[in-house]
Amino acid sequence: MKPVVSIVMGSRSDLPTMKATGEVLKEFGLAYEIRIMSAHRTPEAVEEYAKSAKDRGIQVIIAAAGGAAHLAGVIAASTTLPVIGVPIQSKALNGLDSLLSIVQMPGGIPVATVAIGSAGAKNAGILAAQMIALADEAMAQKLVAYKQAMKEKVLADSIVVDFE
Amino acid sequence: MKPVVSIVMGSRSDLPTMKATGEVLKEFGLAYEIRIMSAHRTPEAVEEYAKSAKDRGIQVIIAAAGGAAHLAGVIAASTTLPVIGVPIQSKALNGLDSLLSIVQMPGGIPVATVAIGSAGAKNAGILAAQMIALADEAMAQKLVAYKQAMKEKVLADSIVVDFE
Amino acid sequence: MKPVVSIVMGSRSDLPTMKATGEVLKEFGLAYEIRIMSAHRTPEAVEEYAKSAKDRGIQVIIAAAGGAAHLAGVIAASTTLPVIGVPIQSKALNGLDSLLSIVQMPGGIPVATVAIGSAGAKNAGILAAQMIALADEAMAQKLVAYKQAMKEKVLADSIVVDFE
Amino acid sequence: MKPVVSIVMGSRSDLPTMKATGEVLKEFGLAYEIRIMSAHRTPEAVEEYAKSAKDRGIQVIIAAAGGAAHLAGVIAASTTLPVIGVPIQSKALNGLDSLLSIVQMPGGIPVATVAIGSAGAKNAGILAAQMIALADEAMAQKLVAYKQAMKEKVLADSIVVDFE
Amino acid sequence: MKPVVSIVMGSRSDLPTMKATGEVLKEFGLAYEIRIMSAHRTPEAVEEYAKSAKDRGIQVIIAAAGGAAHLAGVIAASTTLPVIGVPIQSKALNGLDSLLSIVQMPGGIPVATVAIGSAGAKNAGILAAQMIALADEAMAQKLVAYKQAMKEKVLADSIVVDFE
Amino acid sequence: MKPVVSIVMGSRSDLPTMKATGEVLKEFGLAYEIRIMSAHRTPEAVEEYAKSAKDRGIQVIIAAAGGAAHLAGVIAASTTLPVIGVPIQSKALNGLDSLLSIVQMPGGIPVATVAIGSAGAKNAGILAAQMIALADEAMAQKLVAYKQAMKEKVLADSIVVDFE
Amino acid sequence: MKPVVSIVMGSRSDLPTMKATGEVLKEFGLAYEIRIMSAHRTPEAVEEYAKSAKDRGIQVIIAAAGGAAHLAGVIAASTTLPVIGVPIQSKALNGLDSLLSIVQMPGGIPVATVAIGSAGAKNAGILAAQMIALADEAMAQKLVAYKQAMKEKVLADSIVVDFE
Amino acid sequence: MKPVVSIVMGSRSDLPTMKATGEVLKEFGLAYEIRIMSAHRTPEAVEEYAKSAKDRGIQVIIAAAGGAAHLAGVIAASTTLPVIGVPIQSKALNGLDSLLSIVQMPGGIPVATVAIGSAGAKNAGILAAQMIALADEAMAQKLVAYKQAMKEKVLADSIVVDFE
Repeated sequence: MKPVVSIVMGSRSDLPTMKATGEVLKEFGLAYEIRIMSAHRTPEAVEEYAKSAKDRGIQVIIAAAGGAAHLAGVIAASTTLPVIGVPIQSKALNGLDSLLSIVQMPGGIPVATVAIGSAGAKNAGILAAQMIALADEAMAQKLVAYKQAMKEKVLADSIVVDFE
Repeated sequence: MKPVVSIVMGSRSDLPTMKATGEVLKEFGLAYEIRIMSAHRTPEAVEEYAKSAKDRGIQVIIAAAGGAAHLAGVIAASTTLPVIGVPIQSKALNGLDSLLSIVQMPGGIPVATVAIGSAGAKNAGILAAQMIALADEAMAQKLVAYKQAMKEKVLADSIVVDFE
Repeated sequence: MKPVVSIVMGSRSDLPTMKATGEVLKEFGLAYEIRIMSAHRTPEAVEEYAKSAKDRGIQVIIAAAGGAAHLAGVIAASTTLPVIGVPIQSKALNGLDSLLSIVQMPGGIPVATVAIGSAGAKNAGILAAQMIALADEAMAQKLVAYKQAMKEKVLADSIVVDFE
Repeated sequence: MKPVVSIVMGSRSDLPTMKATGEVLKEFGLAYEIRIMSAHRTPEAVEEYAKSAKDRGIQVIIAAAGGAAHLAGVIAASTTLPVIGVPIQSKALNGLDSLLSIVQMPGGIPVATVAIGSAGAKNAGILAAQMIALADEAMAQKLVAYKQAMKEKVLADSIVVDFE
Repeated sequence: MKPVVSIVMGSRSDLPTMKATGEVLKEFGLAYEIRIMSAHRTPEAVEEYAKSAKDRGIQVIIAAAGGAAHLAGVIAASTTLPVIGVPIQSKALNGLDSLLSIVQMPGGIPVATVAIGSAGAKNAGILAAQMIALADEAMAQKLVAYKQAMKEKVLADSIVVDFE
Repeated sequence: MKPVVSIVMGSRSDLPTMKATGEVLKEFGLAYEIRIMSAHRTPEAVEEYAKSAKDRGIQVIIAAAGGAAHLAGVIAASTTLPVIGVPIQSKALNGLDSLLSIVQMPGGIPVATVAIGSAGAKNAGILAAQMIALADEAMAQKLVAYKQAMKEKVLADSIVVDFE
Repeated sequence: MKPVVSIVMGSRSDLPTMKATGEVLKEFGLAYEIRIMSAHRTPEAVEEYAKSAKDRGIQVIIAAAGGAAHLAGVIAASTTLPVIGVPIQSKALNGLDSLLSIVQMPGGIPVATVAIGSAGAKNAGILAAQMIALADEAMAQKLVAYKQAMKEKVLADSIVVDFE
Repeated sequence: MKPVVSIVMGSRSDLPTMKATGEVLKEFGLAYEIRIMSAHRTPEAVEEYAKSAKDRGIQVIIAAAGGAAHLAGVIAASTTLPVIGVPIQSKALNGLDSLLSIVQMPGGIPVATVAIGSAGAKNAGILAAQMIALADEAMAQKLVAYKQAMKEKVLADSIVVDFE
C-alpha cells in the first residue's frame, strides 16, 4: 500500500510526540511515511519532498517542529496539498514560539495548525483522515464510528462516587 | 449550485474579517453559505447545523469567533467533516485568547486553525479548496495556477530602487 | 440528600485537582454529584445534563477543563443556573489557555471563573456555598464561621522567630 | 426599593465600562447602588462597605478595577457575600494585569471573575441575577426569557446572502 | 534591639524564598520581624499591622505574596512607610501573575517592586538597607563595602580556562 | 536649594510620561534635577553621574527607560543610593519588555520598580518622598496629609446616582 | 559600486519600517540592494537569491518579515553569510510572533535578531557595518565616529530645566 | 594563538549553557577567551573589557545573561565590535525576560540576538565564525563544509520505518 499521508518532523527528538499521529493513521488504515527533515538544515530535500509529494500519491502532509518552527510553512510554500502543522513543546517557551511560528502564516499559504504537543499530534492524524474522507465514504464511516466509540468510552467512564 | 463550504461566525461584527474567505472561495468557484450562529447564544442551532451539514452537501466548515472562541470546537464536536477555525482579533487581548481557545483542542476533536484576523480568513478559504481538491483534480489545477499567479505577482513587484 | 451542586469535568485526569471542590462542599454539608463529560466528545450528554440540571434540583454547576476549555461555556449556554469555571493547569501553556478559554465569554453568557488549579477548585466550592447562602441563612452562618476559622488558623501560625 | 446589588469600582474612569452592568440589572428589575471606592486610596471605606453590605440588604457585590486590581479581592476578604470581579482594560497591558490580579485568588477567598471590559461588565449583571434567582423563581423565569430573547435575536440575524 | 524592618508574607510556604531577605538584613545588622499575614484571610490584622508599624519603629515594610498578590498593595494603602513588594513564583503562571499584581499599582500608592523569587527577596533586603542608609552614614558605608566585596568576589571568579 | 532627587531618562520622548514625577516632587517640596542620559549612548556619562550623585547631595535616583530598559540597572550598578525604575510604555510590546528589563535584576543590585507609564512615574515621586521621610518627620507628615487628601477626594467623588 | 548588503523583506508593506536600514547603510557608504521576496510565495527565488548572494559580492543579508516570519531563517538555510533578522510589528500580536519566529532558530543555523520595528531596522544597518568593519579599518573608524556623534548629540540634549 | 572571540557571561551558572559556544569555536579553530563579568556587579571591569577588546585583537564579543540581562547591551555601549547576545533560560520566566532585555535595544546600539539557551549558545559561535569569514575565505570554506556535514547527518538520519 503506498503511503497517502506524510509525517515530516524537524528532528528525531520529535518522534515521541509524533507517535500519536502514526497510531491514529494506523487505526484508520491510512498508509503513511515518516521523514526527518529540517527546513533549515536540509532545505533542498524539504523543497523537493514537498514538490514531489502529490505525484508520489501523498494527499496530506503533516509537519511537526519546535521553536522557530518553519517546517510546515516551508512545505506549504512548495505544494498545493493541505499541510497540517503540529507545534512541538519547546524547552524554554513551552511551545508558544512553535505555535506562533506555525499558525501566523501570511495570506496565500495556509497551514492547518493543531494543538501543541501530543494532543495536536493525535488530532493531526484525525484531521488528515477527515480530509481524505471527503472523497472516501468508507473513511467517512470510520470517522463516525471512531467518534461514537470515543463518546461511549467517555460516557462509560463518566460516573464518579458522589457525596449525598 | 449547492454550497459545499460553510462559513459560520459568532457575531455579525466578524463579517468584515470574514469577507476575505468568501472572496477566495468565489475565486475558486466554490459555492458557500454564511451563517451567524453563536455557540453560546444558539447552541441547539449550532449543533443541528453541524450535524446536518454533511447530508446537505457541505464538505468543509469554516468557523470564526473571538474571545472565548468555542464555535469551531463546538461544531467539530458534532460533525466528522473537517472544521477550520479562524481566530478573530479581540478587543482586549488582540486575538491571543481567540487563538488559544480554538487551537488547543483535546485529542480526538481536531480544529484546523489558521492565523488571527484577515490573513487567517483568506487562508481558511484556500485550505478549504485544498481539501476539496483531494478529490477534484480541476480544483487542484486551480490551486496550482493560483499559487503561480501569486508568485508572479510578488516577483513582478520585487524590484526596489537600490543605493549603489 | 439530593445533590444541589454539580461538579463536571472534561477528563478523569482533572479529578486530583477537583478533589478540593468536593472537600469544601462536604465541609459545608452540600450534597454534590461528580460527572466526567466532555464538551467535545459527549456534546449531547453535556447539553442534556445542563438543560435538566435545574429540574433535578441542582443549584450551581462547577465545570473544570483544560486547554481549549469549552466545557463551562457550553454548559452555560444551556442553563440559566450560575456556572463556575475552573481552569485546569495545562501541560504546555500552564493553564493560561484554559483560563482565557473560560473567562473571556461574550456578553450574555457569563461563567464565574476562579483561579487556575487547586486554589480555584477549592474556591469554586466556597463560591457555590456563597450563592446558596443567599437564601439559606444557616449556610450564611457556616460561611462566617469558616472565614473566622481560616482567620484564626492564619493568625495562630503568624509568628516566626525574628532577628533582633 | 432597597438595592440588592452593589457595583463598586476603583475609579470614575471605569464608569463607561460598567454602564453595561447597570443596564442589565435594570432590565432584570434589580435595584443597585454604584460606589467609587479604591482598595488603595480608601481602604477603610472599602472594608466597612464590604462588612456592612449584607446587613444593608446587599446580596451580590460586583467590583471592577484595572491594573493591580485588588478591589474585588479586598472586598471578598471582608464579606461572605459572593463577589464578582470585572477586569477593566488597562492602558499598557490591555487588562491582562487586571485579569490576573482578580482571578488568581488564593484558596479560601473566591472572586467570581468575568471577561475583561464591557462584555464582562454585562455578564457580571447577568451572573448576579442568576445568583439571586436561586431563591427567586420569578427572577429565574426572567433569565429563561432573557436567554430565549437573545437566542431569537441571533437567529433572526443569522442569514447572510450566500454565493451559490 | 527593636526591629526596623518588617517582613510580611502571605503564606508560610513563602518562607524558603524569603529566607534570603532575612540573611541580607542580618548581614547589615538590621533588626527585623517576620509575620505571616494574609491580605485576604486576615485583612484587619494586616491593616492594623500596617497602621501601627511606624509607631512601633518600623522603617521599611517588605511584603511577599504570590498569585493575585495583594498583600504589598493593601499594606501600602494603610501606611506612608515605603513598602517593598516581592513577587513569589506561583505554580501555574511562574510569578507573572504575582509580579503584575504587585507592580501595576495605581497612581498615589507606590509599591517598590523587585524581581520574582529569591533574587528579589535578597534585593528587598538590600533596598531596605539603602533606604535606611539615607539617614545613617554607617549603613551607607556598609553598603559601599558590600558592593565592593561583591565586585571582588565576581572578579576573583572571573577567569575561565580559554581555548587558544 | 540643591536637588535631592534625580530624574534620569533614556530619551527626550520619555519627558511627557515623567512630567508626573516632577509634579509630585514639587508638591512635596523636594528639589530635583532632570537629565536625559542613555545607558547605551552615553555610558560614561551615566556611570559618572551615578558615582557622583551621593556626593552632590542626591538621595534618590529615579530612572525611566523603555524597551531593553537598562538605564536603572546600570545606574544601580554604580551607586549605593536607592534607585527607582519607571518602565516606559514601549511601542511594540506596550512596556512589558521595559518592565521585565527593569524589575528582573539579579541578586545584589536592586531596582525599586513601579508601574508602567504615568501611574508609575507619579508613584516614583511619592516613593522617593517616602524614602526621604525616613529621616525627615516633616516630610512624613506631608505624606500623611497627602494620603488623607487623596482619600477625601475619592470619597467626595464616590456617590453615583443609583437605580432603586 | 556593487551592493555589499542585501535588504530583503517579505512584503512591500515592510518598506516604511525598513527605510531606516537603508538610511544607515547610506550614511556608512555601504552599497545595498532591496528585494521584496516571500519565503512562502516565492520560495525558489529566495533560495536562489540566498545561494548566489556570496558570489555576487553580498557580504551581509538583512531579512525583515512579520507574523510567522520565516524569511530570515529560510535565507540562513541557504547561505553561510551572516543573516540579520528584523521582526516587523504585526497587526494582532504586535511583533511578538515575528520576534519568536525569527530568533528561536535551532542549533546550526543562526539568525542575528534585532529589535521589533524601526529601531531594529536601524540597528540592522549598523550591525552590518560592524561586521564589514572586521576587515575594513576605514569602516571601523566610521563606526567610532558614528558612536561619538551619537553620544555628543545625546549629551547636548541632556539638560532639562530643573526644580530647585 | 591570541583569542579573536570573547565569551562573556554574567554568572558562573551560565557556563553549562555556554559550553556549546566554545565547542563550536574550537571546531572552527577560532581561539577564544571566557570571562565571567557582571554588568551590575563589575561595571567598570565590563566597560574596560569592552573598550580594550578591539585593541587586544578580539573581533566578536559573545555575551550571555539571564533575567534583566543587560550585559550584552552594556558591552555594545562601549565597543564598535559586533556583539552577539545569548539569552539564558531564567528560572521564573523561562528566558522571556532575558530575551526581551537583550533584543529590544534602542536605535544606535545593536545586539545580534540568538535563541534562548543552548541552541542560541551554539549559534552564537557559528555566527561569530560567519562574521570572521567575511575576511577569511578559509573560514568561509569551513562554514560551507560545516553546513554540508550537518545536512548529510540529518539526511542519513532521515528514514524512519513507515506504516504501509
